[in-house]
Amino acid sequence: MKPVVILGCGGHASVVSSALLTQNRMILASTTPDPKAVNRSLYAWEIITDEDLLARYNPDDIELALGIGWTSPNNATFWVQRIVQRFLEKGFQFTGCRHPFAWIAPEACIDPTAQIHAGAVIQPRATIGPFAIINTRASVDHDCTIGAFSHLAPGVTLSGSVKVGDGCHIGTGASVIDQIEIGTECLIAAGSVVVSSVPANSKVRGVPAKPFFTVAQHQPDT
Amino acid sequence: MKPVVILGCGGHASVVSSALLTQNRMILASTTPDPKAVNRSLYAWEIITDEDLLARYNPDDIELALGIGWTSPNNATFWVQRIVQRFLEKGFQFTGCRHPFAWIAPEACIDPTAQIHAGAVIQPRATIGPFAIINTRASVDHDCTIGAFSHLAPGVTLSGSVKVGDGCHIGTGASVIDQIEIGTECLIAAGSVVVSSVPANSKVRGVPAKPFFTVAQHQPDT
Amino acid sequence: MKPVVILGCGGHASVVSSALLTQNRMILASTTPDPKAVNRSLYAWEIITDEDLLARYNPDDIELALGIGWTSPNNATFWVQRIVQRFLEKGFQFTGCRHPFAWIAPEACIDPTAQIHAGAVIQPRATIGPFAIINTRASVDHDCTIGAFSHLAPGVTLSGSVKVGDGCHIGTGASVIDQIEIGTECLIAAGSVVVSSVPANSKVRGVPAKPFFTVAQHQPDT
Repeated sequence: MKPVVILGCGGHASVVSSALLTQNRMILASTTPDPKAVNRSLYAWEIITDEDLLARYNPDDIELALGIGWTSPNNATFWVQRIVQRFLEKGFQFTGCRHPFAWIAPEACIDPTAQIHAGAVIQPRATIGPFAIINTRASVDHDCTIGAFSHLAPGVTLSGSVKVGDGCHIGTGASVIDQIEIGTECLIAAGSVVVSSVPANSKVRGVPAKPFFTVAQHQPDT
Repeated sequence: MKPVVILGCGGHASVVSSALLTQNRMILASTTPDPKAVNRSLYAWEIITDEDLLARYNPDDIELALGIGWTSPNNATFWVQRIVQRFLEKGFQFTGCRHPFAWIAPEACIDPTAQIHAGAVIQPRATIGPFAIINTRASVDHDCTIGAFSHLAPGVTLSGSVKVGDGCHIGTGASVIDQIEIGTECLIAAGSVVVSSVPANSKVRGVPAKPFFTVAQHQPDT
Repeated sequence: MKPVVILGCGGHASVVSSALLTQNRMILASTTPDPKAVNRSLYAWEIITDEDLLARYNPDDIELALGIGWTSPNNATFWVQRIVQRFLEKGFQFTGCRHPFAWIAPEACIDPTAQIHAGAVIQPRATIGPFAIINTRASVDHDCTIGAFSHLAPGVTLSGSVKVGDGCHIGTGASVIDQIEIGTECLIAAGSVVVSSVPANSKVRGVPAKPFFTVAQHQPDT
């Protein structure tokens, strides 16, 4: 396996690097968007900028891992997708991770770039899309589908046959009953209990989960 | 160990078959209540009707596994119990499962027909009754008792010394504090937080969980 | 490793003893505050009083384990701390436990007296303080800090960079989003979803969690 450079150097990068090391991957460096953070000694490896990465490493020699844990859909997701797109266009390939203290049913289908973290459970016939994050101790039950760039936060529980679109964030400790469809780019707030389907671009919260809006969210994106 | 025929061929059957395969059990067939579904290629094995099962297999040669995941108590539980009773009367025996990615304390007492699925934790001195399902990543703490045909949905958390009667359904992501008694045939809705005991035949929901009724539920069973 | 005497003989003691046995520790006895409970046959070992313990065992020959699972902060925590202090002053040392069916990231920092129980996950750069209990299937994410004598009940989920002060109780199934600070001696009720920081000595509950008080709690401590 090729050595890895991690995009990002914050908290989620530490989770990703720990998972990769547990899989015996070699890590060369983490990147930072903040040039002042270069070479901070948080890790055993160098912290460099994305430009350093491009200057130093050949796309054939390494794999990248996405170490950014975004918490809101829409702009956040697009921002992360742009970063990924930029490196894909330069010929780099991404690796995901499959933590050894997780259960992935052999009958599940996991994209190679998806991340399955410690304590997670993926049941049979679930499909996990590209760059999706199944975070600490989240579970995805039989026949669920998780879209690209969707993020299930720690402790999320999806019952069977749930369909989550692309670019969603399901917050810490949220639960979703069986057969629910969640459209693309939805935000399910932490601790929500989702008992009816959620249209695309919605933000829901509560027990049971209901739509919510804030003033800021009514303003046009600029 | 004898080979297994699974009653049911839907989502929960896929969870049960995956658990059994992980325990190196051999699976011969799944059954369907819908004759039109016979021999659909969802699995590597045949899908047959219950009548085919009775015609083809000798009770001494196989074990049955209950692959039906009901979500409501009362009629649903009775229906499942009747199916089980029918096969027991014909001399068949049932197996449960104990997923290898689950923790069952040696001091717990698990009925051989109970199902303990991936990510579940059973703590010391817990008792799990016949045909109970402890589903994906549910946990049952010390000194709990789970009655026959009760189903803890994915992500349920029971604290210590909880007593759950027969034929209950505890919904996705629900939590129950210590010392609570839940009577027979109760429905605890998804995401409920149970902080006081629940009489038999109740339906509760919310944080904290309170009783609820619907018009349909006031009508006599027919 | 030295053999262990467990302080306490109730439900949490059974969880602690099970974890210790799973780590191949030898257990000599459990203690009871109730002299009438001496030699009840709950365990394979003797149940003795604290005075018996002091009379029989040399601090150099054994380790103690705290088998008491308190559920309220303030008086309960102080009471447990006094018990621990009493034995520390007599020269005894305490052991924690790290259940083998738990994941502790190598980059986490766990006090030797902390308890990590079955199904728990501790992510990188988390710090778990002295005598803290991370109970069944609770998770502590990257960069969290858990204070001394704090107890995360079964199924609790902490997202990243949460800071929990000393002597807190976080109830069954509660969730805390990232970056939250919870002061010392707080009670977070079962099933709460904490989305804003909690000052010291607070009691909060609900989704989202809000402060609550009872008449008794307005009375001065005596």
